[in-house]
Amino acid sequence: MSQSTSKVESISSTEQEQPHVLSIPLSEQQTDRSPHSHERWLLSKLLRMAGSPPVRFQLWNGEMVAPDEGEVRFTLHLKDPKALYQLVSNPNLAFGDLYSSGRLDVEGDLPDLMTELFRSVNDVRERWPKWLDALWRSHNPRSTGLAEAKENIHHHYDLGNEFYSLWLDNAEMQYTCAYFEKDDLSLEQAQLAKLEHVCRKLQLKPGQTVVEAGCGWGGLARYMAREYGVRVHAYNISKEQIAFAREEARRQQLDHLIDYIEDDYRNIDGQYDAFVSVGMLEHVGKSSYGEFAGVIQRALKPDGMALVHSIGRNRPMLMNAWIEKRIFPGAYPPSIGEFMEICETGNFSVLDVENLRLHYARTLEHWMERFEQHEDKVTELYDQHFTRAWRMYLAGSIAAFRAGGLQLFQVVFTPGENNALPQNRRHIYGKPAAPEET
Amino acid sequence: MSQSTSKVESISSTEQEQPHVLSIPLSEQQTDRSPHSHERWLLSKLLRMAGSPPVRFQLWNGEMVAPDEGEVRFTLHLKDPKALYQLVSNPNLAFGDLYSSGRLDVEGDLPDLMTELFRSVNDVRERWPKWLDALWRSHNPRSTGLAEAKENIHHHYDLGNEFYSLWLDNAEMQYTCAYFEKDDLSLEQAQLAKLEHVCRKLQLKPGQTVVEAGCGWGGLARYMAREYGVRVHAYNISKEQIAFAREEARRQQLDHLIDYIEDDYRNIDGQYDAFVSVGMLEHVGKSSYGEFAGVIQRALKPDGMALVHSIGRNRPMLMNAWIEKRIFPGAYPPSIGEFMEICETGNFSVLDVENLRLHYARTLEHWMERFEQHEDKVTELYDQHFTRAWRMYLAGSIAAFRAGGLQLFQVVFTPGENNALPQNRRHIYGKPAAPEET
Repeated sequence: MSQSTSKVESISSTEQEQPHVLSIPLSEQQTDRSPHSHERWLLSKLLRMAGSPPVRFQLWNGEMVAPDEGEVRFTLHLKDPKALYQLVSNPNLAFGDLYSSGRLDVEGDLPDLMTELFRSVNDVRERWPKWLDALWRSHNPRSTGLAEAKENIHHHYDLGNEFYSLWLDNAEMQYTCAYFEKDDLSLEQAQLAKLEHVCRKLQLKPGQTVVEAGCGWGGLARYMAREYGVRVHAYNISKEQIAFAREEARRQQLDHLIDYIEDDYRNIDGQYDAFVSVGMLEHVGKSSYGEFAGVIQRALKPDGMALVHSIGRNRPMLMNAWIEKRIFPGAYPPSIGEFMEICETGNFSVLDVENLRLHYARTLEHWMERFEQHEDKVTELYDQHFTRAWRMYLAGSIAAFRAGGLQLFQVVFTPGENNALPQNRRHIYGKPAAPEET
Repeated sequence: MSQSTSKVESISSTEQEQPHVLSIPLSEQQTDRSPHSHERWLLSKLLRMAGSPPVRFQLWNGEMVAPDEGEVRFTLHLKDPKALYQLVSNPNLAFGDLYSSGRLDVEGDLPDLMTELFRSVNDVRERWPKWLDALWRSHNPRSTGLAEAKENIHHHYDLGNEFYSLWLDNAEMQYTCAYFEKDDLSLEQAQLAKLEHVCRKLQLKPGQTVVEAGCGWGGLARYMAREYGVRVHAYNISKEQIAFAREEARRQQLDHLIDYIEDDYRNIDGQYDAFVSVGMLEHVGKSSYGEFAGVIQRALKPDGMALVHSIGRNRPMLMNAWIEKRIFPGAYPPSIGEFMEICETGNFSVLDVENLRLHYARTLEHWMERFEQHEDKVTELYDQHFTRAWRMYLAGSIAAFRAGGLQLFQVVFTPGENNALPQNRRHIYGKPAAPEET
C-alpha cells in the first residue's frame, strides 16, 4: 500500500536530499558475493567509533563482524552490501531507514539496543573529529513557517485517529508524556494524572478562561472544562485531531465550555487567565521562539499563569536526523537554556520547572507494548515499512529518554510583574493526581 | 568613626572612578541661594523619565517640585544644589550615595518608595534613548578572580559577626532567602524551613557526603549534619564567618561531621553525594560560570545531586551600580537563562527549579525591622553613614524583590546520565518544613 508508505517517506526521501548518503553502484546490491576485507574493516571501525557497544554484525553471507573485545548482546543483520555502505556513510539517518525497509534487522530487544547505542555514542562523541560529527549529525530541519507548519503537522498527526487509538491510552488519547507519580499506574491513570498535574500547577479556578496551543485530540481541554469548570479556546492545525476533539466534547456535553479552533498558535487572540501548551513547542522551531513568546505575552492577563510542557535537552543539539526527516518534520527539542530564552524574551518570571524525563521513557514503553500488540492491524492499515519505521521511532525514543539524550520539561511562568503567586508548591501534592481506577 | 565608613565606601569611591558623576563647581554647594528655573526643569524631567512616580522633591530652600499630575505619596528632600546635579547625572549611583550621606532624605516608607520607583522605571525604561540607558546603567563590576574574590567577600561578610547577629535570625544566622511556606512563620521558623527544604530537595541520607560552596556562618552544614547525619565539607573565604562556624559546630558537638575549610570554591577537591551552594553564585561573576560548572562536575559522584540557590533575574542585566559599588563588590545575579547555561556547560540535567522571589521580599522585611530596632547600636558600631547606607540597601532589596527586578531561584540538577532520580517531588511536601516553634 504505497500511499501509506508515503506517510513515512513523503518528505525529502529522495537521495539528492540526503547529501551524506553515498551513491552506491548497483553491483553492491548483490547479496551472493563474499564481503571484502575492507568492508569488515569499515564495520569494525564503525563499532569503535560508536564506543564499542556490545553489538556485532552478521553480513549477508552469514559471516560475523564482532567487536575486538567485550561481550556481545545484540546482532545486527546487514542484508546486502549497499546497506553496509549506507550505514557507514551516515549511520544516523541510515540506521532507521535500513531497519524500516528490512535491510537491517536486529536480534535482541530493540529499545535496549538503542539505549546501549545512545549511551555508548554519548561517551565518545566529544572525541570524534569535528568533520565526522558534522558529516554524521548535521542536517537542515524543515521550516516551521505558517504554511510549512501545516504540512509538518499533517505529516504526523493526520495519520488517522484509528491508528493512534490502537496504542495511545483510552482515557483521553494523550500523545505526550504521562505522569507516573507511582510506578504501578496504568497508562490511563498516568495520563489522567498528567492532566491533573498540569491543572494543579496552573491553579485553575471555575469560570477562568484558558487558551491552549496545540491541543492534540482535545483531552486536556476537556479535562480542564470537566474537572475545573473553565472555558477553553484550544488551537490545533491538525484537521483530524480537531474533528475528533469536537465530536468527543459534544459526546461529553462539554462543547458549551470549549472552542476547538483549527488554526495556528500564531493566530491566537484574546486575553486569558491561563496559557497552556503540552507537546507543541517541539514543533515550533527555534527560529519561531520569539514569535511564540510574543503570542503568550499577548494572550496572558497581567496575573495569568502559563505552562509549557515540552521535550527538551540538557544542551542544544539538532533533532536526530532520521526522526526529523521521517517522523517529525521540523521538530526541534530546545535545550533548557533555549527554553528559558523564550521566557526571557517574553519578560516572564519562571516559577517552576520540573523534569519528567523517565516518565516519558515509561510512557513510551506502554505505547510500544500496545503498538506491538497491534502490529498486524498497523501493517494492514499501512504496510510493513511503516510498521517497522514506527517500531524504530518508539524504541529510539524510549532509548533517548533512558539515556538522557532527551528530557521532558514542564515550565510554569507568569508576567514579570505579577505578585499573585502561590505561596509554595504544596497545592500540587495535596492528594494523588491519578484517579484510583479508570 | 572613619574606619567604619570605609566599610561602605572602601572600594572605588573616588570621583574619577565614577565617570558618570559630573564634577560640580564648589559654588553649587551653597544652600543659601534660590534654585534656578533650569534646576526645577531638570527635576521635573527626571520625574517624567522615571515614569512619573508619586514623588515630589523638596529643595534646599523649602521649595517643592511636584509632578505635572497625579498623587504624591513621597517627598525627597534635596539638601544642596550639588546633590541635585549628582542625582540627575547618575540617579542609579547617586540616589544611594546621597541618601547614605544624608544629603537626600525621604519622607514616607523607604521600601514602599523604592518599590514605586522600581515599578515606575521598569514600565518606561525600554522607551529611554539607548545613550541614556547606557549612561545611567552601565558600570564595570569588579573582577571575581581568586584574589579579588577574597577582597570582595571580605568587604561585606567580614563586617563583624556582632553586626549581623543584630538583625539576622537567631536560629542559624542565615543571610539568604528564608522559606515562608506559611505566611505567619517567624523569621527563625522560616530560615529553618529553608534549610529543611534544601535538604529534602537533595534527598540526603545518613552517611552521605556533601560539599558546600560558600557556607556563610555554617548553618546549613550544621543542619545537614545534625538532622540528616551527613558528613560535610563546607568552603568559605570569609575569615570571620569560618571562625564563627567552627566555634558553633564545636558547641553543638557536630565538629566530627563537619570540616569548615577557609578556601575558595575553585579549590574544592574530592567527590561527594551532594553539592550545595546557597547564596554564593551571586558572587561568582559571569566570567567564572564555566569554572563554577567545572567545579561541580568534578565534585559530584555520577549519581550525585546538586542544589544551587541564588538571586537571579528574569532577563540578563547588570547589578544595580550602587549595590555593586557600595555593598556587594563583584556581585552579579544571573538571569534564569544564564543560570541554565551553567547547567548546560556542566552537562547536567536540570530536575527542578523553584522561584522564591516573594519569600525574599518577606525575609528582607524581617531583617529590616530588626535592623531598625538596632539602628543606634549599628551607628555605635560604625557610623551614621553606614547605618543609612545599609537601610537603603535593605529597603532597595525589598523593593527589587517586590517589583520583580530580582528573583530567587533554587535549582536542582544532576549529571546527565544519572537515572537514580526521584519519582516525583512529593517527598518535599510530606510534612511542614518549618518546626512548630524555635
